[in-house]
Amino acid sequence: MNSSIEQKTRVGVLNDYLSVDCVIFGFDFNQLNVLLVDRVMVDELTGKELFNDLTLTGNHIYEDEDLDEAAARVLFDLTGLQDIYLEQFKTFGAPDRIKRENDRAWLAANGRDPDKRIVTVGYYSLLATDKVTLEWKGRNVRWTPVAGVRDLAFDHMDIFQEALVALRKKLLREPIGFELLPEKFTLSQLQRLYEVILGVELDKRNFRKKVARMKYLVPLDEKQKGVAHKPARLYNFDRDLYELNRKELLDFAI
Amino acid sequence: MNSSIEQKTRVGVLNDYLSVDCVIFGFDFNQLNVLLVDRVMVDELTGKELFNDLTLTGNHIYEDEDLDEAAARVLFDLTGLQDIYLEQFKTFGAPDRIKRENDRAWLAANGRDPDKRIVTVGYYSLLATDKVTLEWKGRNVRWTPVAGVRDLAFDHMDIFQEALVALRKKLLREPIGFELLPEKFTLSQLQRLYEVILGVELDKRNFRKKVARMKYLVPLDEKQKGVAHKPARLYNFDRDLYELNRKELLDFAI
Repeated sequence: MNSSIEQKTRVGVLNDYLSVDCVIFGFDFNQLNVLLVDRVMVDELTGKELFNDLTLTGNHIYEDEDLDEAAARVLFDLTGLQDIYLEQFKTFGAPDRIKRENDRAWLAANGRDPDKRIVTVGYYSLLATDKVTLEWKGRNVRWTPVAGVRDLAFDHMDIFQEALVALRKKLLREPIGFELLPEKFTLSQLQRLYEVILGVELDKRNFRKKVARMKYLVPLDEKQKGVAHKPARLYNFDRDLYELNRKELLDFAI
Repeated sequence: MNSSIEQKTRVGVLNDYLSVDCVIFGFDFNQLNVLLVDRVMVDELTGKELFNDLTLTGNHIYEDEDLDEAAARVLFDLTGLQDIYLEQFKTFGAPDRIKRENDRAWLAANGRDPDKRIVTVGYYSLLATDKVTLEWKGRNVRWTPVAGVRDLAFDHMDIFQEALVALRKKLLREPIGFELLPEKFTLSQLQRLYEVILGVELDKRNFRKKVARMKYLVPLDEKQKGVAHKPARLYNFDRDLYELNRKELLDFAI
């Protein structure tokens, strides 16, 4: 446990009816992953495991915390991850969102009334898995392939699925993927990034036609080194050019 | 009061800490408006007006209501508007979002603890003002020009401003404006729509270059009738073509 963790350890009153849930997507060149937490409930008398399932990284918020602050703190507490950009995407508050037996038992065991509605504010984020180190803080938090997520506790399956839709929509509209690539990258790497996040296979020729229109994607006078195959050209994402290009959306303005 | 209003009148327990606020934008060809509610507080003993300010259309939610349901109900109760598409865009929950004296006095007079946090889920919508009839239900609800909104109660100014940004962003990315136009419209009408919603003046030539790229904007073999000036060509928005075009975003998929 490092000093920054201790700095963030806090006391205070938790709000019983308000939580945040973070859907943390982790990219690697093989697959898209999501950060899940093991939830294990044990019979206090017998020590027998009653159930063992998975949740998103989430928790209740402190009374003196803002929503964004709570999301960052919850994520940090569970994983040690800091300074992660978290995007609030939707709030979930159906009166019956906590209806399953495991969820009711879990809440009761944690001193909460399972009949009381808990509203949760959903956040998502996208990281490169190899750029982060997870610190397990008593509970098991781990990357799970998105394609393999079958069931989650509470309504976390809905939250996860809506976050995935929001992430994919954003990728098709904004250049959010480039931070996951090396500073200089090949078009094959870029294509793989889109394929992994969108969960589709892309046709190489069509993909290259599309990216040729992205003016902020700058071909460099440089090629890959130390590869067995024919070295490919390297590219660079120019954020200034992107911002300029984005303003062109409005360039019809006087 | 018509029968559908009576049908929706309901009893139940209101949730003290959870509200919805709707930012209802109203378009006319002169300006963009927003629906605001007069908030008047009167001294019970003297009958003297203590203050008179403006809020968004919002209220607390019932314990057995989902969030979307509550937003629709609140809007209906204040205005008589029904079947309006409301987009949830952000939840506001800063611990100090209710700090001003008027807001504290108002809450206390309505039986709520001003020191208790209220989290509000923000929705927005865009309507053509001439298509709707507002029914005042005891409180004064009216269209106010967006450009003239100076101050609102609670943190409603923040909510209003963030909704305006979200609306403008959406207009630049999705064809949300066409329902505000007649079925057959001129490019000048379309330009005016963009100008009013974005709050900018647009250059006619550049605008026409941009819209020429919108393949789902179909020129008709028909011109305006009964106008004093040279009649302009009429256009039509083809939603099927748009959906096809939108899928092209992903047409590089195999």
